[in-house]
Formats: sequence, structure tokens, C-alpha cells
Amino acid sequence: MKPDHAPLAQGELAARYPLIRKDTGRLAAPLTPEDCALQSMPDASPVKWHLAHTTWFFETFVLQRFAVRYAPFHPGFRYLFNSYYNTVGEQYPRPQRGLLSRPALDEVLAYRAHVDERMRAMLDGPTLGDEALGLVELGLHHEQQHQELILADVKHLLSLNPLEPAYAADGAHPAAAAAPLEWRARDGGVADIGHDGTGFAFDNEQPRHRVLLAPFEIASRPATSGEYLAFVEEGGYRRPELWLSEGWAVAQAQRWEAPLYWRHRDGEWREFTLAGARPLDAGRPVSHLSHFEADAYARWAGARLPTEFEWEHAAGAGGEVWEWTSSSYGPYPGYRPAAGAVGEYNGKFMSNQYVLRGSSCATPAGHARRTYRNFFPSGARWQFSGVRLARDAA
Amino acid sequence: MKPDHAPLAQGELAARYPLIRKDTGRLAAPLTPEDCALQSMPDASPVKWHLAHTTWFFETFVLQRFAVRYAPFHPGFRYLFNSYYNTVGEQYPRPQRGLLSRPALDEVLAYRAHVDERMRAMLDGPTLGDEALGLVELGLHHEQQHQELILADVKHLLSLNPLEPAYAADGAHPAAAAAPLEWRARDGGVADIGHDGTGFAFDNEQPRHRVLLAPFEIASRPATSGEYLAFVEEGGYRRPELWLSEGWAVAQAQRWEAPLYWRHRDGEWREFTLAGARPLDAGRPVSHLSHFEADAYARWAGARLPTEFEWEHAAGAGGEVWEWTSSSYGPYPGYRPAAGAVGEYNGKFMSNQYVLRGSSCATPAGHARRTYRNFFPSGARWQFSGVRLARDAA
Amino acid sequence: MKPDHAPLAQGELAARYPLIRKDTGRLAAPLTPEDCALQSMPDASPVKWHLAHTTWFFETFVLQRFAVRYAPFHPGFRYLFNSYYNTVGEQYPRPQRGLLSRPALDEVLAYRAHVDERMRAMLDGPTLGDEALGLVELGLHHEQQHQELILADVKHLLSLNPLEPAYAADGAHPAAAAAPLEWRARDGGVADIGHDGTGFAFDNEQPRHRVLLAPFEIASRPATSGEYLAFVEEGGYRRPELWLSEGWAVAQAQRWEAPLYWRHRDGEWREFTLAGARPLDAGRPVSHLSHFEADAYARWAGARLPTEFEWEHAAGAGGEVWEWTSSSYGPYPGYRPAAGAVGEYNGKFMSNQYVLRGSSCATPAGHARRTYRNFFPSGARWQFSGVRLARDAA
Amino acid sequence: MKPDHAPLAQGELAARYPLIRKDTGRLAAPLTPEDCALQSMPDASPVKWHLAHTTWFFETFVLQRFAVRYAPFHPGFRYLFNSYYNTVGEQYPRPQRGLLSRPALDEVLAYRAHVDERMRAMLDGPTLGDEALGLVELGLHHEQQHQELILADVKHLLSLNPLEPAYAADGAHPAAAAAPLEWRARDGGVADIGHDGTGFAFDNEQPRHRVLLAPFEIASRPATSGEYLAFVEEGGYRRPELWLSEGWAVAQAQRWEAPLYWRHRDGEWREFTLAGARPLDAGRPVSHLSHFEADAYARWAGARLPTEFEWEHAAGAGGEVWEWTSSSYGPYPGYRPAAGAVGEYNGKFMSNQYVLRGSSCATPAGHARRTYRNFFPSGARWQFSGVRLARDAA
Repeated sequence: MKPDHAPLAQGELAARYPLIRKDTGRLAAPLTPEDCALQSMPDASPVKWHLAHTTWFFETFVLQRFAVRYAPFHPGFRYLFNSYYNTVGEQYPRPQRGLLSRPALDEVLAYRAHVDERMRAMLDGPTLGDEALGLVELGLHHEQQHQELILADVKHLLSLNPLEPAYAADGAHPAAAAAPLEWRARDGGVADIGHDGTGFAFDNEQPRHRVLLAPFEIASRPATSGEYLAFVEEGGYRRPELWLSEGWAVAQAQRWEAPLYWRHRDGEWREFTLAGARPLDAGRPVSHLSHFEADAYARWAGARLPTEFEWEHAAGAGGEVWEWTSSSYGPYPGYRPAAGAVGEYNGKFMSNQYVLRGSSCATPAGHARRTYRNFFPSGARWQFSGVRLARDAA
Repeated sequence: MKPDHAPLAQGELAARYPLIRKDTGRLAAPLTPEDCALQSMPDASPVKWHLAHTTWFFETFVLQRFAVRYAPFHPGFRYLFNSYYNTVGEQYPRPQRGLLSRPALDEVLAYRAHVDERMRAMLDGPTLGDEALGLVELGLHHEQQHQELILADVKHLLSLNPLEPAYAADGAHPAAAAAPLEWRARDGGVADIGHDGTGFAFDNEQPRHRVLLAPFEIASRPATSGEYLAFVEEGGYRRPELWLSEGWAVAQAQRWEAPLYWRHRDGEWREFTLAGARPLDAGRPVSHLSHFEADAYARWAGARLPTEFEWEHAAGAGGEVWEWTSSSYGPYPGYRPAAGAVGEYNGKFMSNQYVLRGSSCATPAGHARRTYRNFFPSGARWQFSGVRLARDAA
Repeated sequence: MKPDHAPLAQGELAARYPLIRKDTGRLAAPLTPEDCALQSMPDASPVKWHLAHTTWFFETFVLQRFAVRYAPFHPGFRYLFNSYYNTVGEQYPRPQRGLLSRPALDEVLAYRAHVDERMRAMLDGPTLGDEALGLVELGLHHEQQHQELILADVKHLLSLNPLEPAYAADGAHPAAAAAPLEWRARDGGVADIGHDGTGFAFDNEQPRHRVLLAPFEIASRPATSGEYLAFVEEGGYRRPELWLSEGWAVAQAQRWEAPLYWRHRDGEWREFTLAGARPLDAGRPVSHLSHFEADAYARWAGARLPTEFEWEHAAGAGGEVWEWTSSSYGPYPGYRPAAGAVGEYNGKFMSNQYVLRGSSCATPAGHARRTYRNFFPSGARWQFSGVRLARDAA
Repeated sequence: MKPDHAPLAQGELAARYPLIRKDTGRLAAPLTPEDCALQSMPDASPVKWHLAHTTWFFETFVLQRFAVRYAPFHPGFRYLFNSYYNTVGEQYPRPQRGLLSRPALDEVLAYRAHVDERMRAMLDGPTLGDEALGLVELGLHHEQQHQELILADVKHLLSLNPLEPAYAADGAHPAAAAAPLEWRARDGGVADIGHDGTGFAFDNEQPRHRVLLAPFEIASRPATSGEYLAFVEEGGYRRPELWLSEGWAVAQAQRWEAPLYWRHRDGEWREFTLAGARPLDAGRPVSHLSHFEADAYARWAGARLPTEFEWEHAAGAGGEVWEWTSSSYGPYPGYRPAAGAVGEYNGKFMSNQYVLRGSSCATPAGHARRTYRNFFPSGARWQFSGVRLARDAA
């Protein structure tokens, strides 16, 4: 990969590498070996797989190319932990990741330690070129993406267990009162969209280009669970006129009646969280919505989703939930994927997915930015995804 | 429906109605009752169903609302021939349209005659208001859309028959030599996109709005079968790096090796056509491509698909194949579906489909226009769909 | 095939052939071309296919082998209308029989006439050997089996049509009062089972052999719809303890609540029949039961199904419904399939099916006999299948 | 349950209980927590589930009914570890057993210890009645059945892992030379079949009854891998005339080319075993055959499968592989399931399965007997199942 920006300095990367890698380990620490081995659905992966795959990324794209005399930790891992890089070779089938009892968690942790030690030696050693440094930096951002996926996947797995186990206790958690929703007007005109090349960005945030916007208004915050509850209780899941045709078909087939982790029991709405099941917290942003639900909610509310351009133009980054936009995930004008295997990182997924903007409670600090483009299929609900309303200027 | 434009005059509609309706009958004329009753896949419909549904459209949206003392031809048809209008009521399941041996073709033709007679009386009678006239006009455009679908669906049905029956003989058909492909440069800047309200347009072509384009180049004609054959023969269907990830998965699962109706037998490429199987005609536009194949072909050719805005800005309408664009099918800024049941015509399908522009050999004369937006899912191959290349300005 | 018995004399076959073939035509006479072309599910076949396949049987097994200079009516039919004879060649896929709009019904009827004419000439001609005569006789019994299948398949197809069309009007039909159910005791001991070789029998009814039976009792008639209704109304479809495990799973997955053609509307039980929908006739034998339902009903009634040996030992043949037995369909001791292609007629289906005995209202006169073994999978409901109770001797 | 035989004395059960329970623990000892948590297919269960379910059996059927003041170890386990007893209550869905990361293996082992301690106290305590003792005895046989399932399920799980892990090393294992196959003639006549009530038997082995057999011959040993290899290499998996129709369809759909764990690599046949992958051992009995394969092999060999009655009459029990018979699994004449929940143990599975006789290398010592009836569906291959030939007397 020839990065479009100057990568971080080697010393800075040497400092960040162990911190970010340890963060991943900390996320897995509360989990048992069994928690780490199971796969709850084809879309999700076992935690153990995340731990190994992120390591595979450094081994394959950095150590095997730039380290002196690096021998792979295990010859079978090149195949087992390749997610989707055809350039690297064949891949173990994704829906079967939960069939791998071996390597055991301990062996995967040893794999992490082994690669970390070699990475440390490399980063502390002779000066590396920009390509190597750029790949290390990419690997760290990749690692952070998987940190969020670990939480989403574990939450999904535990939610299916009738024992309703908690991932982690959390402390006292007073119900929040959300600020009143306000509409913020934004002028139209030509906006600059995409990353300007200062610091790291994924290839899909580039090239920076100009887009013509009409005047619009955007909500001051995402919708809360309390607001969404009104949609549910006023029959939102039973009124086809509020839904995209495909969304209605999916909602009927999968018997959706509320967001993924909401449960109605004994007259009370509860929500499964990483701390176990709890009463619904009306003041917090509603989460775990599909694009279809976000779209139907917006229609019900007499509004619409923002485009990703409106969002980038208007909103700051960061927040408690990713925010669905109405924009299909596609290439920016002039987009070119990176050369080599990492060119498969983003571009080949540019079909039939929708863009989410912002960040969530599960996003590692410092990972997101205003131009960041997250993306998932319209029916995906297990991410920390919510909805912010927009509307045309009056 | 409150049409956005002034509908055609009543006299003009009275003249056009019987012509367009007869065109539909002419398309069905070469077919046996069995040809008209079968459904080859859930995406397709029996011809008999098309004949009845287009009639249902006039009966439900025009006669039942605006005719004096109109009694439905058959009480069960409201349910049987409702395609997807939730506002009208429940619908007979689409994948089971091929299970209806009754009503027989004769009865459906009698249904057509009955509605046509009442429509004639109405259009020849007292002056109608704009809403009624607008719905008649919409119904005629709707009828023309189904004329094209009849050909696509019949072709698919006959193609599955090992006897390779022909829909219709065609005359002498000398192989065409395509003109050499040229690149046409277009300046960027602000372009006006969408229908200007003069004459009929579907709601999805509106509102007219401005879009900022970068300079680009677009091919002078769609790719030919001969050009596409080079892609096939150079391993285009075996090289994942040319494909979108989802497209590759579909192509593998469905074992695609060439366009839908191409067959390789005894060392020769043949193509199933409405006139039966024939040697591949290298000079004609390649047809029956999915969006995935069009996209992979463009990548192989070192080019890309045009956006629908580039297409509208640069190309004239009309041609032998619909042309896939890179644009996901979504609402134009400020889009509002029509009020009432016909509001379900277009808007609710604005997810996970891609826009095709132009028209095809199966499109009725006068139906298409420069701002017309056709749309299908990425994997659809049974439409008369091809590919025109584009690229960024050098 | 070397028949185990002396076939009928040539003159007798020459007399029977046209009568039985005409019976088939009579069954199809009330049907439209569309009725004859559609396939309602993979288990069923279009009537047109039955008409052609039975003709194919005579063409392939008789005319092509024994007629002088016989040229096939159409070269493609050998493939299209081969049901399951691997020895003859590949077969057109069964679930796609409903995709064949061509040959049209008229052409299939011409195929029948062509083969019938050649068969007539052959049977009226020089003396044929036993092998040829045996195959003609087999073909006529085969034809009669398909006569019953035509009625079962048409009933299923029409039952799925919301218009509830009738296959044929039937006359005044006074509700029958069933005779009281009586228990008939039978001694145990060694019973002779299977066909004795006098006259025609299928290979699966042979060899005749001896079976040891314990004393048992068997009902004087099959269960009526009225008796079965008590099972339904006492929760028979909601009590897993009455069902085989697999039956319960199927009943839940397919949401069974009553026999296939029963419908509960506005507080009344109705039944779809070949004469259209009618009030349930409590006095007639319950029909269209799966093996699972027959078994559950017997358990609910404190009884069991008879074995096929008990049935043959005790019952006479003939009746209004086929009667499920508890016997899995397998070979009799010493069973040998016929040599050649017709050896695929019965033997290869001897797994995971259960035997039905007797005959039904749809069975052609003279077709069944006491040793006849009909067989279907446990979940099949679209045949004219009911239940007769049995129990161990006190 | 009112056992049909006198159960073992309380002292004898007190002695056997800990031995058999420890055997189960020993089987799990070589496995990691991840090995124990995964489910490789819906037919198989995680080892952890086996460990818990067998414990649940004693807790539910013995302790909760006969122990003084027994409180369940965990209130959720009644639901989680109920396999299929509708009488006890609803069941956690079988295909989702691999989604339970909790309870952890440690907690399941604590559950076992808890129940074992209470069982010990009970068996060492005051005299128990026959019903309680009979259920303890049943529970121990049930435990032994799951011991074999643990090995079958673990083998299947590990076989899917590209790393080809071994369950356990085994020692030097010289290739065996099988004795030549001999045919043993048996007279026909009336044979006594089923258990005589001396000692333990499952309800499905009873009542003892008489069956009439024709003279037959049976092989002196099961077929070896070497013999089966000849079938494979002579095209056995490509010749439909050797197969039952349903078996051929399954074999084609699942692309069978050899027994489940055979692999052809680099010109050599290898076999996955509990000790990892090894060269095929031609002298040992072929294992992991489906009923369909056993049947096809027998047909190829000019023989047939024995009936379960022939097997019981002729063979001794015990061996290295279970032996498929031609007998569908059904009730013996006069069969009555046990009263209460354990009545669901056997009877409700008597449809669409075939009987295997004997025992295998994975069967605990002392578990099997001559009258033992094992049963699986025709397509099941992951059991230790082989084939012994039979034929009619000349």
C-alpha cells in the first residue's frame, strides 16, 4: 500500500502499538474460553477469531513482508485467519468459524504474544520505510475496528443464552434525561466532503471532493429509546406504509416487533445489555436498529434520514450510537483502492450496504473522525446503530 | 394522485388507450394458454398475470373511483391481481402466481375486454378531472412497463425448456458490425437532473435538482457481445479481484460462467433469443447482464460504470439494452411519493437496487426518456440489461 | 422383464388397451390446458406430464423394443418424460415439470394418439412373445396408477386457488351415515402373504411367503370424518404425547391443525373436494391423512395401525380411502426386482416409506387387489389416504 | 416407570453408579473447554451438553422424585438440558446447543459433582423402591449411550478442523489382517426374538415374541475397509443402479465419494480417526457408513443386509462397528412404552429410522447385548456404523 498521507513516525507507532493491542486483550479478559470460541450467527465471529485475525493482519502484511527471517507462527493460520483477502489465498469459510475448537484460546494468546514481540523488535529496530509504517498504522486502525466488533458479537452471543449472562457488571447507572430535540438549520451550497489527507484515513474516505447540498435541517441528537418506544407503541411494526418494501418483508419474516435487544415481559419493556437485562432506559439513544427500522422511524416522525454528506457537513463526530444515513455505500469520485492485498480492505464491499456515520459507546477512543464511513447491510441490527432525523429546509 | 404535471387531454388519452392496450394483446398472441400460465421463478410472473394485473390497475384506480356504478368484473380479482399495494389490501403471494390455472386465459381476455369497454365509455363520456386523467395516463405507462416485462419473463420461461422453443420467428438477421468504441469527454460542473415537468414522468424522476459533476468520459455505445466475450475468455468469471465481494459470492453460488443466455456447446458460443437458440452475434450489445457482471466487466476494461447523473447529462435515451449505472436507487432531494395507493408505485423500492438508464429492444416505442430511472437488484439478469463504460477525465 | 406369471393373452390386451387409455383421456377432459400444465408442488406432476409419461412408457418399453421400424414421436421426449429410470438415461428434473409450457397439451394428445395407433397395430398384428405382452400389461397397470395420481394432483392444484374451482360437478350427494364401528377378532398363526402368481401383480407383492401373526382385532371400517373431528376438537393437533417425534416436528413446522383439505371458517368445518368446497361430511371416511396423523389418531383412540400383514390377512380389498399400515415399505424375503429398466419400478423406493393397503374412490375399477402394496412417505397428505384401527387381542 | 424386570439391588447400583459416571468424565478429560462447547451440526451435541444432560436425567427422574428436600442445582437447567421430554416441559432448541457458552465447563462439572454427591447419599441411604432403583439403572444405561455419542460427536467436530487435531494419541497400532470372510448358513423356522426379561433391557427390546425366518446365510464378520475400497474404486458412488433412490439423491446432493472420514490425497487414501489422520487400514471393519451406503455395498457384493431378526438369531453381540440391518425401527408386537416421562425414551422415534445391531469400538464395556436395538436415520454417517452381508439360502 502506498498511503495517501504521511504515516505516523516510527517512534509514535512503537508507542501506540502495545497500547492498542493491550486494549484488545482487556476486552477479552472477562470472557471464558467458551465465550471466546462460539459463533452466534454467520455475521458474527468468535472472539478468539478476532484475536487471531487481527494478529494475522500484522503477521501477513507487515512481518512476512518487512521483517528479517520471519517464520509464520503456525503454517495453518494463513488459511484459518484470513478473513476475505483473495490475494493472500483461500479462506476458511466464515459461517464455520464457530467450529474451530483448536487452536485453543491459550494458543491464540501465545500467537498474539509472539507477533507482538516481533513487532516490538521491528518497531524498535532500524528505520522502516513509509510502506511498512503505513501498514502498521493501518493494522492499528483495523485492530480498533475489531475491538468494536468483539463487543457487538459478544453481546449477540450472550443475548441468545436463556440464562442472560452479563459480559461485565457496570456501576450505578442513573437513568439519563435526554436534552430536548432541536432542529438545526444548515445552508445548502457546495460542501467539501471526504478526508483532507492530514493524518490517517481509510481509502474509502477519499478523495476529498465537492458535493452540492440543498438547505436542510438536522436533529440536535439521535432519537432516544423513549421516542422510539412511541413508534413501537403506535404500531410502527404493524404499518407497512411506513416501511421500505424490502424492510417490511424482512420484518415480517423475522417477526420484528421492537429493536433487537428489547423484550416485553410482564407488561414491562426490558433491554439486554452488556451488563445483563435491565429496564429500558428511555433517555438514552435507541440502539441496535437496522437501516430499515431507522428509515421507518424517520418516516413515522415526518422526517427522513440525512445523507452522509449532510451528516458530514453538519454533525460533529462521536456519540453513543452509529447513525444510519440514507446513502448507499459507494466509491467517492476518483476512488482508487490501494494496491496489493489491502486493496481488498474496503472497495469490494461497495454494494448493497448503507453508510453509518459518527461512532458508538463501543468505538475505541480516538478511532472515529468526521469523515469516517462505517457501513452495514440494511438488515443488520447487532451493531450499536441508531438514528438521527433530518428534513428538507422549510 | 395529484400529478405534478398537466395530464394529457382526455381526447388524446381516449385515442392512446386502445392502441397501447392492443399492443399488449399482440405480445401475448404468439403464446399458448400454457405459455401464459407458467411462472419460471419468483422474480418473473406468468403472462396471464401481467394481462390481468394491468387491467386490475385501471379497474382499481380508475373505474372503481371515477366510473358511475362500476361493479368489479370478479370479486376475487382484487386480491389475486394486486401486485404490492398494501393500501388496496392483501396480496396473493408473488411466488405462487404460477399456481393459478384459473381464471383461464380466455377469462382474463374477457376481463380485459370488459374493462376496456368501460374505459372507452368513460373516456368518451363527460369531462374528467385531472386526477382521473392523470391516473389513466399513469396506467398506460404502467401497461408499457409490463409489456417489456412480458418479453423478459417469456424469454426466461422458454429458455428453461430443453426443447428451446422460439417465441417468434424473426426474419433474416445479418450479423451487425458495431461501430468502433469512442470515448466522449464531458465537462464537469453543475448539471440539472430530473424531469422538468413537461409531459409525463414517474414520481421518482422528480424533483428536478442540481448535481455537481466532475469531468468524465463516457463510451459512445454499450459494450458488444464480442467485447464481453474477451472478458469471458480471459477468465473474467474466475478472477475474484475483478468483482465486488457480494457479486463474486453470487457468481460462485450460482455457477455463472457467462451471461444468462449464453451457452457453450461443441466449441461454439450460442445465445438463446426470443427466436430460439442462435450463434452469438458479436456485433450486438451484450445483454442480460447483472449489475455485478457489468461492474466486473468495467473493472476488467480499466473503466467504471457511469453514475446515473453522468449518464443523464451525457447520453441520449434509447437503445438496444438498458445500461447499468453505479447509482443506488434512492430518492431525489425533496422527493415525495404520490398520495394514496399509487404512492406505493416507486418510493418503497428505494433500497438495495441499482439504476439502469436508457431503454431496450423490448421497450415500447415512446415509453422511455432521458430522465427515466429503471431499477433492479444487483443480481438480476433476466432483463435486457447491458453496460456502457465511463471513466474519470484524464 | 420376465414376468413371474403368464401375461394376459394378446387378444385380451388388445381389447383392454384402448379402454384404459381412453379412461385417462376422460379424466383430463374437464381440464383446461392451463390446469394440465401447472405443478403445485415437487411431489405432484402436471396432468400433461402424466399424459405424456404414461405414453412414454409404452413407447420406450414396448414400441422401441418390439415394434418394427418404430421412430420416436419426438427425440426430446425420451429425456423430458422419463420419470426415474436411470437405465434409460438422464431425467428432466422432477421439481421443474411445471416449467414446460411446450409441448402444448394438443401436442401431447397427438403423442398419445400416435403411440396408441402403433400399439393397436402391434397388438392386432403377429403374435408377440411373453416379454412384450408382459410389458404391455405392466404398462396398463402403470397407466391406472397415474389415473389416480392425476386426480390427487389436480385436487391439490385446485385447492391452492383462492377461487376454489371445482374439477367436476357431482350430483346430489346425500350425507352418508356410517355403520357403527365394530371390532373383528382374528386368530394368530402362520399366514400366507403376497401374491400367488395367478394373474397380474407388481414385483413388490412377491414372493409369496409365510409370516407369523399374533391374534389381533381390526376395525370393521375406516375411521370417519366425524370420528376424526373428535380427535381434532379434543386437541389432537396440540398434544405431542400422541405423536411420533418426527410427526410432531412436521406438524408444527407446517402448522397442521386438521386434515389437508379441511378448513374452519365462520365456525363451520368445510372440506375442499373435487366438486369444490363443501360442508364436512361426517359419515364418510376421513381422507388425506399423513401416516403421522393416522398414527396419532390411532394412539388417541387407544388403538394402533394394523401391520400390512394383518391387513392382508383380515381385510378385503377396496374402499373409499387407502389405509395406512404400520409397516415400513421393504422387500419381501427373496424379493428380486425385474431385470432391465423396469426393475427400477418398485425396488429402489424401499426406504423411508410406509405401506398403504386397499384402494380409494380415485382408484380405477379392477386395479387393486388384496395383496396390493401402495406406499408413500410419512408426511404425504395429498393422496386419498385414511386410517383403519387395529389392536392386540385382549 | 414400572420396569419389566427386577432392577439391580441397591448395593450393586451404589457400586456401579460412581464407576460409570467417572467413565464419562474420563472421556471428557482430554478435551479443552472449547472442544466441549462446540456443536458441529444439528445432529451432534456439545460434549458439555452431554455431561449436563446425563446429570439432568438423574436430577429430574430420580432426585426430584425420590430424594428428600432436593432443590435443583440451577433453576434454568430443567429447560436447558431437557433433550426431548415434552412431559417434563419445553426444551431448548437442539440446533442451538452450540450457542451456550454458559454454564461454563467448570460449572457443569460442579453440577455433576453436586448430583453425584446427592445420588451417593441416596443410594447409601434407606432402602429404595423398585421404581426408583429401576430409574437409577435406566439412567446408568442412558449415561453409557451418551458416552458413545460423546466420542462420535467429538470425532465429527475435530474432523472439520483443517488442523486435523487428535482427540487422543493411541499406541502402536499394527495394521490388522482380517480373517477371510466366510458364509455361515442358518436354518429357518420360528425364532424367539427380543429380551427375555432377565436383567436390564430397554423397552424397545420387548416383548419377546416369535418370528418366522426363512433359511439364510450371514457373513462371518463385517466388511473391511479393504473390501469397501474395492466398491469405491469400481465406481460404487457413481452407479445409481446400486442405490436406493433416496440414497442416490442424498449421495449426489452431499457429494459423497467415500465413507465420511475417508480422504483421498496425493494418490493415497487416508482416514480421520480419534488419533488424527492416518493411512487407511484395509484390514479393519469399514466404519461411518450410512444405511444407504451399507445397502448399496451389499447390492454391489451380490448380497443384502440381514434383517434384525436374522442378525439376532445368528450373530453374537459385540464388535468394532454397529451393523446396519434392513429392518425399519418399529415396535415389537404388543409393545407398550413405559408410563410417565421416560415413556418418551424410545417409542416416539419409531419412524423412518433403521436398526443397527451389535456394538462398536466406542460402546462401553457391558452396555450392549444380543437383543439391543440401536437406530439412526438412513443418512446418518457419523456413528461407528458398518455393514455385515447376508443372503438367502441357496
